[in-house]
Amino acid sequence: MMRLLRQVRFPKGGFMSRYALTRKLDCGYDEAVEKAKAALEREGFGILSEIRADDIFRKNLNKNFRRYLILGACDPGSAYKALTIESDVGLMLPCNVIIYENDEDGSTVAAADPTIAMSMIENPAVALVAKEVKEKMEKVIGGLR
Amino acid sequence: MMRLLRQVRFPKGGFMSRYALTRKLDCGYDEAVEKAKAALEREGFGILSEIRADDIFRKNLNKNFRRYLILGACDPGSAYKALTIESDVGLMLPCNVIIYENDEDGSTVAAADPTIAMSMIENPAVALVAKEVKEKMEKVIGGLR
Repeated sequence: MMRLLRQVRFPKGGFMSRYALTRKLDCGYDEAVEKAKAALEREGFGILSEIRADDIFRKNLNKNFRRYLILGACDPGSAYKALTIESDVGLMLPCNVIIYENDEDGSTVAAADPTIAMSMIENPAVALVAKEVKEKMEKVIGGLR
Repeated sequence: MMRLLRQVRFPKGGFMSRYALTRKLDCGYDEAVEKAKAALEREGFGILSEIRADDIFRKNLNKNFRRYLILGACDPGSAYKALTIESDVGLMLPCNVIIYENDEDGSTVAAADPTIAMSMIENPAVALVAKEVKEKMEKVIGGLR
């Protein structure tokens, strides 16, 4: 399971690890996906890619895996700003949001912390954009019920 | 442009920054995309997503941008191994490969270094898988001409 070094409190029941914003939901997978997509849209994130990891594993490896979706979320304005500053920002785009079935009941929704991913670029102007995106993403994940 | 702190030599003309494997090619964008896709396939990477950043900016912001493709590349066997070890690995999947037009002539192909992205997870077993993927990605990027 996830290491929670330097774990900090996250508003209303979620938590934040060193690299992710995470929320566990009581609902099933399908409902969690709908909620996550709706919350992303409300904050202005477009969904640029949808990857079902379990489908990939079934088709390529003939292996079963829990239902597991990787959404590529992107706020176009922020992405444009960051890419205009630094051409290699695309290596960290879009921002991943994962939704998966828990081992026991319920589902997990988590987003990569954009400030951590973008910190590899070591450009203060990019870091500023990442901070704005993180604030939006905190609203997305923190607002899930 | 990219910071090349701790830059190290990369076989035959490419270079590696702290977080990326990069190669500059003399050919145009379309040819670079074909070459990158073929090289990924040869090393067993599937392409799970294709995002044209310039299209997104044109449609959403009415802004022009250089041709810029973000490929989501994934070696299914390695992804399965890593995700079985740690549920949150999906936050760093797939591995991004970007292809874009240079300011002047030619194109750039770059891949995120999977060992850097996965180092956030802080799990030695995941780090081992990331190292294997990095070796494959080095062949992909290092083999481009």
